[in-house]
Amino acid sequence: MESAEAYRNLRCNITIFEKTKLPLPGASDEIRSLILEELKKNGINFYENSDSYKFIIENNFVKAVNFQSRIMEFDLVLVATGVKPNNSLAVSARLEIGKFGGIKVDNRLKTSDQNIFAAGDNIEIQNRITRKNEYLPLATFAHKHGHIAGANAAGANEVCESFIKNIAVKIFDNAYVGIGLNEIQANENGFSYLKISAVANNLVKVMPESRKTFGQILYEKNSGLILGAEFFGGKEAIGYGDLISSMIYNKSKAETLGAMDFNYTPPFSPFINLLSILGRKIKKGQL
Amino acid sequence: MESAEAYRNLRCNITIFEKTKLPLPGASDEIRSLILEELKKNGINFYENSDSYKFIIENNFVKAVNFQSRIMEFDLVLVATGVKPNNSLAVSARLEIGKFGGIKVDNRLKTSDQNIFAAGDNIEIQNRITRKNEYLPLATFAHKHGHIAGANAAGANEVCESFIKNIAVKIFDNAYVGIGLNEIQANENGFSYLKISAVANNLVKVMPESRKTFGQILYEKNSGLILGAEFFGGKEAIGYGDLISSMIYNKSKAETLGAMDFNYTPPFSPFINLLSILGRKIKKGQL
Ligand SMILES: Cc1cc2nc3c(=O)[nH]c(=O)nc-3n(C[C@H](O)[C@H](O)[C@H](O)COP(=O)(O)OP(=O)(O)OC[C@H]3O[C@@H](n4cnc5c(N)ncnc54)[C@H](O)[C@@H]3O)c2cc1C
Ligand SMILES: Cc1cc2nc3c(=O)[nH]c(=O)nc-3n(C[C@H](O)[C@H](O)[C@H](O)COP(=O)(O)OP(=O)(O)OC[C@H]3O[C@@H](n4cnc5c(N)ncnc54)[C@H](O)[C@@H]3O)c2cc1C
Repeated sequence: MESAEAYRNLRCNITIFEKTKLPLPGASDEIRSLILEELKKNGINFYENSDSYKFIIENNFVKAVNFQSRIMEFDLVLVATGVKPNNSLAVSARLEIGKFGGIKVDNRLKTSDQNIFAAGDNIEIQNRITRKNEYLPLATFAHKHGHIAGANAAGANEVCESFIKNIAVKIFDNAYVGIGLNEIQANENGFSYLKISAVANNLVKVMPESRKTFGQILYEKNSGLILGAEFFGGKEAIGYGDLISSMIYNKSKAETLGAMDFNYTPPFSPFINLLSILGRKIKKGQL
Repeated sequence: MESAEAYRNLRCNITIFEKTKLPLPGASDEIRSLILEELKKNGINFYENSDSYKFIIENNFVKAVNFQSRIMEFDLVLVATGVKPNNSLAVSARLEIGKFGGIKVDNRLKTSDQNIFAAGDNIEIQNRITRKNEYLPLATFAHKHGHIAGANAAGANEVCESFIKNIAVKIFDNAYVGIGLNEIQANENGFSYLKISAVANNLVKVMPESRKTFGQILYEKNSGLILGAEFFGGKEAIGYGDLISSMIYNKSKAETLGAMDFNYTPPFSPFINLLSILGRKIKKGQL
């Protein structure tokens, strides 16, 4: 998605072939629809449900794509279908491998061989909300865990905490931010949850840079704890996401968002921000 | 301060006479020094410890200021020495008045007359951290309390929660953000606290818009709870402040800041953000 933007800014024609119906699988359908609008607004061709294309190769280079019997020529083809751990070294060392192909480690980052510790893009890590292992290769984890694995390999006994997902993608002038579980994960893990969403301006409307941001929170019905959230809009969504990550970490109830004192300063923040609106809706039990 | 900036942007010459040693009383000395630097960088004249000026008035207009025997002419003089509640109507209605001159209300916003409710810039409100009354006239409180006072005057029984200060001031390209108690208040209220500070970039250093933000957190020695925080730097400080306000509201420990998963996305957020650095220092007990 970020490459599409970068090449578009260089005035290239861009075509995205997406296997599912909307861009950015993993995000909520509401946000995926907003992203599609954004792509179209920026002149990007988008083909939905389109995994039946074929590359036409000449002299070892992709020359064109055959899609639904149409031959489409491209200067560059970028395949972005996900990431998986390169576990060949670990396999040859007979380390235990998890179900996503990553090295299994304990909460001291020790592998199944007590003399080998691992960190970074090749390990599976524990989700703080589901308590299940996942494969989520991020620089923040690689860094944090690298320190722990290194210390423990040298004889220390540092504990590696489970993680809360907190990722963002830049999509033209928008930030997409996803924290914690999405609906698919909440369902798969049997959570009984409620979903609340709202749209709010990031500044009072009279400010010239005022713009809208969409937000959505999933919270557990009985405990009232936040399971996940997603935002799409202005840069302040990064701060909203960090605040939600902090609340998940500290097991703060979702409805407290409606009672907190947020900043209001016209050049920086709106009279009532998106988190406050979401919190007030949660408090009232509105959907 | 914001007027100084606005007029400076119109290319006016600006002189500030400040009664104390540094601008923005109430902020921490570290930040006040940074603000002074910022004012000087922007060509603003600043006179410290200067409350002994005299206005020279002609035809009912201020024509000049006599300061240390120097006559300085100005086109406009703006006096900004604080705010106090206009309680004349309340006094004439014999309502009980608090020690800051604001109307005393209970947690239903009822005044001492059971048929009169009050909200907004004329009441005293309870600080959530000290549990003492203060006078802090903000639009956010006026709005929130206006709803409650109105509902209760009409027979409802809504509760008004105590407040957490969360204010910001724009100072040229910087945001100053203050949340909760400052050191003076922490001392006055007999808290035994620790103070931690750090400077961090808001984006990885290779990003062109990367810049530094200063942050400081006060937290209670025994409980580890946050008493207050201040930031000076980029706009992301608003998000940091809201996150701190949320932690104070939910009584989350200061050191958890070092263990949370914050966002890292090069166009939006740094590899390790200011809050995380402050949290790690708190965890290690560094000052
Ligand atoms: C396009 C892109 C964007 C990303 N954006 C973000 C982001 O915004 N935020 C975020 O948190 N993360 C992001 N990431 C993920 C982040 O880059 C990785 O999680 C992180 O770099 C992993 O660190 P690592 O040390 O585990 O692996 P790496 O950084 O991949 O380092 C592993 C090193 O080992 C070397 N190596 C491999 N095999 C051997 C061998 N047999 N012998 C010797 N050396 C070997 C490799 O050459 C490599 O230099 C992004 C990744 C990509 C690809
Ligand atoms: C320069 C400035 C910047 C500010 N910036 C911020 C900010 O960034 N964030 C923030 O949260 N707050 C800010 N505030 C504070 C905010 O504006 C006030 O807290 C808020 O407006 C208070 O609302 P209120 O309804 O209590 O009073 P007001 O908005 O003052 O309304 C009171 C009304 O009552 C009228 N009135 C008075 N006496 C009588 C009478 N006897 N009969 C009839 N009518 C009467 C007045 O004319 C006025 O219209 C700022 C204030 C100022 C002055």
